[in-house]
Amino acid sequence: MLKAALSQINPVVGDLAGNGVRIKAAIARAKSLGADVAVFCELSLCGYPPEDLLLKGHFVANNLKHLHTLAKSARGIAAVVGFVDRDSQGLIYNAAAVLSNGKVAGVYHKHELPNYGVFDEKRYFSPGKNSGIFTIKGTKVGINICEDIWVDGAAYKTQVRNGAKLLINISSSPYEEGKLKVRQALLLKRAKEIRRPIIYVNCVGGQDELVFDGASLAYDANGKVLARAKQFSEDCILVDLGQKPGALAPVLDRSAEVYQALVLGTRDYLHKNGFTKVALGLSGGIDSALVAVIAVDALGKENVTAVSMPSQFNVKATRDDARIMAENLGITFHEISIENALSALMKALGPYFKGTTPNIAEENIQARIRGNILMAFSNKFGWLVLTTGNKSEMATGYCTLYGDMSGGFAPLKDILKTRVYDLCRWYNTQAGKDIIPQSIIERPPSAELRPGQTDEGSLGAYADLDRVLAQYIEGHKAPSVIADKALPLAYVQKTVRLVDINEYKRRQAPPGVKISPRAFGKDWRLPITNKYRE
Amino acid sequence: MLKAALSQINPVVGDLAGNGVRIKAAIARAKSLGADVAVFCELSLCGYPPEDLLLKGHFVANNLKHLHTLAKSARGIAAVVGFVDRDSQGLIYNAAAVLSNGKVAGVYHKHELPNYGVFDEKRYFSPGKNSGIFTIKGTKVGINICEDIWVDGAAYKTQVRNGAKLLINISSSPYEEGKLKVRQALLLKRAKEIRRPIIYVNCVGGQDELVFDGASLAYDANGKVLARAKQFSEDCILVDLGQKPGALAPVLDRSAEVYQALVLGTRDYLHKNGFTKVALGLSGGIDSALVAVIAVDALGKENVTAVSMPSQFNVKATRDDARIMAENLGITFHEISIENALSALMKALGPYFKGTTPNIAEENIQARIRGNILMAFSNKFGWLVLTTGNKSEMATGYCTLYGDMSGGFAPLKDILKTRVYDLCRWYNTQAGKDIIPQSIIERPPSAELRPGQTDEGSLGAYADLDRVLAQYIEGHKAPSVIADKALPLAYVQKTVRLVDINEYKRRQAPPGVKISPRAFGKDWRLPITNKYRE
Repeated sequence: MLKAALSQINPVVGDLAGNGVRIKAAIARAKSLGADVAVFCELSLCGYPPEDLLLKGHFVANNLKHLHTLAKSARGIAAVVGFVDRDSQGLIYNAAAVLSNGKVAGVYHKHELPNYGVFDEKRYFSPGKNSGIFTIKGTKVGINICEDIWVDGAAYKTQVRNGAKLLINISSSPYEEGKLKVRQALLLKRAKEIRRPIIYVNCVGGQDELVFDGASLAYDANGKVLARAKQFSEDCILVDLGQKPGALAPVLDRSAEVYQALVLGTRDYLHKNGFTKVALGLSGGIDSALVAVIAVDALGKENVTAVSMPSQFNVKATRDDARIMAENLGITFHEISIENALSALMKALGPYFKGTTPNIAEENIQARIRGNILMAFSNKFGWLVLTTGNKSEMATGYCTLYGDMSGGFAPLKDILKTRVYDLCRWYNTQAGKDIIPQSIIERPPSAELRPGQTDEGSLGAYADLDRVLAQYIEGHKAPSVIADKALPLAYVQKTVRLVDINEYKRRQAPPGVKISPRAFGKDWRLPITNKYRE
Repeated sequence: MLKAALSQINPVVGDLAGNGVRIKAAIARAKSLGADVAVFCELSLCGYPPEDLLLKGHFVANNLKHLHTLAKSARGIAAVVGFVDRDSQGLIYNAAAVLSNGKVAGVYHKHELPNYGVFDEKRYFSPGKNSGIFTIKGTKVGINICEDIWVDGAAYKTQVRNGAKLLINISSSPYEEGKLKVRQALLLKRAKEIRRPIIYVNCVGGQDELVFDGASLAYDANGKVLARAKQFSEDCILVDLGQKPGALAPVLDRSAEVYQALVLGTRDYLHKNGFTKVALGLSGGIDSALVAVIAVDALGKENVTAVSMPSQFNVKATRDDARIMAENLGITFHEISIENALSALMKALGPYFKGTTPNIAEENIQARIRGNILMAFSNKFGWLVLTTGNKSEMATGYCTLYGDMSGGFAPLKDILKTRVYDLCRWYNTQAGKDIIPQSIIERPPSAELRPGQTDEGSLGAYADLDRVLAQYIEGHKAPSVIADKALPLAYVQKTVRLVDINEYKRRQAPPGVKISPRAFGKDWRLPITNKYRE
């Protein structure tokens, strides 16, 4: 039986030349390991998802050019590479090429095109019709792509019926919490169903809001796991399907998995966009503490600058905690008072605000001065600003547009507040010390934009709030269905209404890492103008 | 032959009860005019496009409930209404109901589901299979939906083959420049092809970035236009297909058409989201002048507040022009200096910026103070802020995130700078006087963020710039194809690169009115992380 390399790489969308180099190097590595075939992920040559780049004819043409150049590297070994194919009518396909003997020996077009959640493949691709059976070193292999193995009775089945002794599925399967378990269950089921070994290669890396978690897999014909590549990093594992299993990377526990997704998503967003350094507002609260920790793990402490921007409403304890937090991480720390800028603005607005009652306007002015200061560092020194808001805030609009929402990337965008606490506790535990001071974890959360303000005074207990949000956002459930003894209907309706009316804020938010079944990104397409109430 | 009413209404997305009331009233009006059937637009009951509301089971269920309530109004007249249907397996359909005798007499499911441009219908709907032939007052009528008449040989053709004497197409066809001409050419072609009269009913109104322009149509079997409803407003036209044509609304010229799209898009975004008033930064430049004019036409002069926020870099002439412009329109005008806030911020940042060369950081601080001031008015008084940037700026990133990009709606988001000039000149001409002072039109455009700055010094002549942008954005053309004698390749590449690297800014921009074949909205889905270069 074949010896296959699970060549798990981190491609960059649109980087045809760079991805070509990555693939070429990985083919050489697979060959040096003694592999008969190196298997790469879905659309490995152009990166996934290329989105509307696919509408540019020159992009598709250039990707084909790069494929043919790449084919020359496949000598003495075969390679399965993902690319965009185009037929004589100009229709395009999500495709896999078998490269061998220095040429493109065969091509398969994906049959099943996902068009739900974060996927828009029917916007671009035509469904394939060819069988996808290829002979590699004497073995009949069925090659299919991602969704083709998820849909019952799809291409994989026909391939087995037509004599395939081994299945190769190339995927770019975005991470969400617990997804590896789901994939493993699927592949186990399929191996048992078709009684053939399966090679499953995923990509790894961050692409805007998506993170690909790797964890490529090989199963034998009985459904036994033969190999598992690392989660959240590049890897190359040789598996001899006839004889011996390959390496089996350990599976991260749930918190570690989510945390690694945040770290990788943040790092790749920065690095792939040409940034090495970040600034963030470190308030002494729990959200910015967690973002600081993620930033350090993603970029190195020398690349993180924390700025504390107190006003009269920030109590000494939070200011001190911000400083301690920065010291614990060894990152640069600046404290810049916003009081003078605030006075100047209030004075300028004085004649127009005269006689009005202080409201959210005065609060937001403070947040926007802070945004201005952070962005000034960004513009002056070329750092990217990380925002520190979490999913509970993004959901309810408990955040200031152009204020604390100012920044290029939002690591916690898909992390509910209760999960922020969990991750901070987990972080301290695995670090073996309180990098995040207990006082930050224990103090009642507050935006500190007016005296006596607390989040839970405004929004209700986070435990309740997050239970509503998870059901409304991830489950699309109706308020009347969400309401229960602990969550009165009026509270649910009030919360859900906040989610609805704050769509406009989310539309202007930076991207962040998707970790849930439904994040505020490509899988959340609610209209802003929307009068629907259950 | 039948007497049909083109019942062209302005539904609100998600407003099932409100749309029900609108449809009911329009049915009564059609009946009073003597119509046999009142025809409404695609998804008239729930508004178009409902986007991910369609993923909520309770939304679909409630829309069905409202349909059955609405059916009771159809007595002594039939009505064709758009709604979301659901089958026993839970699949949903973009559907048309024939209401008559107080009941839902029949249902058609759209066959052709557009999944390109701004359309994502395959994300939600299953394609229909039923024939769509119904008998209304003794006449066999083929009913189909939008795309069904655009695709050669689609449902409309089968309906005629199966005996339909008349076709009714219900659409929600978004406006873009010149779209009416395209629709008229299509319907003329179809009428001649099938030799049957066609009733085509479109919706009207703004929905986030989309504007529906109405202009519902009726054609006789020879391709003669029998009726045309108004562009950009609700209408109801009776057309007697056997005997006499209905009203023929005049067709607006190109500038008027685009301008009306901007006015309606802005008005509906405001009103449908519960706003009546706006604030905007009036700089004395041409973009903000045009936005002020649009705001007044959309909302009334009493609902528009203009704020001029000069710094030392704003010359007296622009400041004066801002004031004159406000006077010409009769809108409230405030002048608020940003100098003190700027000093306070520069002083706070002083220790960190020491020894650096002034760059974009200092410029953007000014723009962000202005954003803060405008948003303070918004938060204090409940006004929406209109941003004043145009498409050329959005394309090249010649705008400040959280600065002049702060606001809820961007009327000029899809208007290239050269078109801004055209519209201003057109506006003055049709007004018969220089509402927009000539000095605003003639002064070289400048952001006035540093001494001697001009847009064209930074970006090249707008005539050249816009020629590149139109081809790169709307045409997805490669730089090497765009370059010509007047547009050197290096200039094209530099410009295109600006478009690419500023995707992150656009992702955080407010929505604006789509008027071009490709706007920066749902029809522009480029990755932020994107290393593709031609």
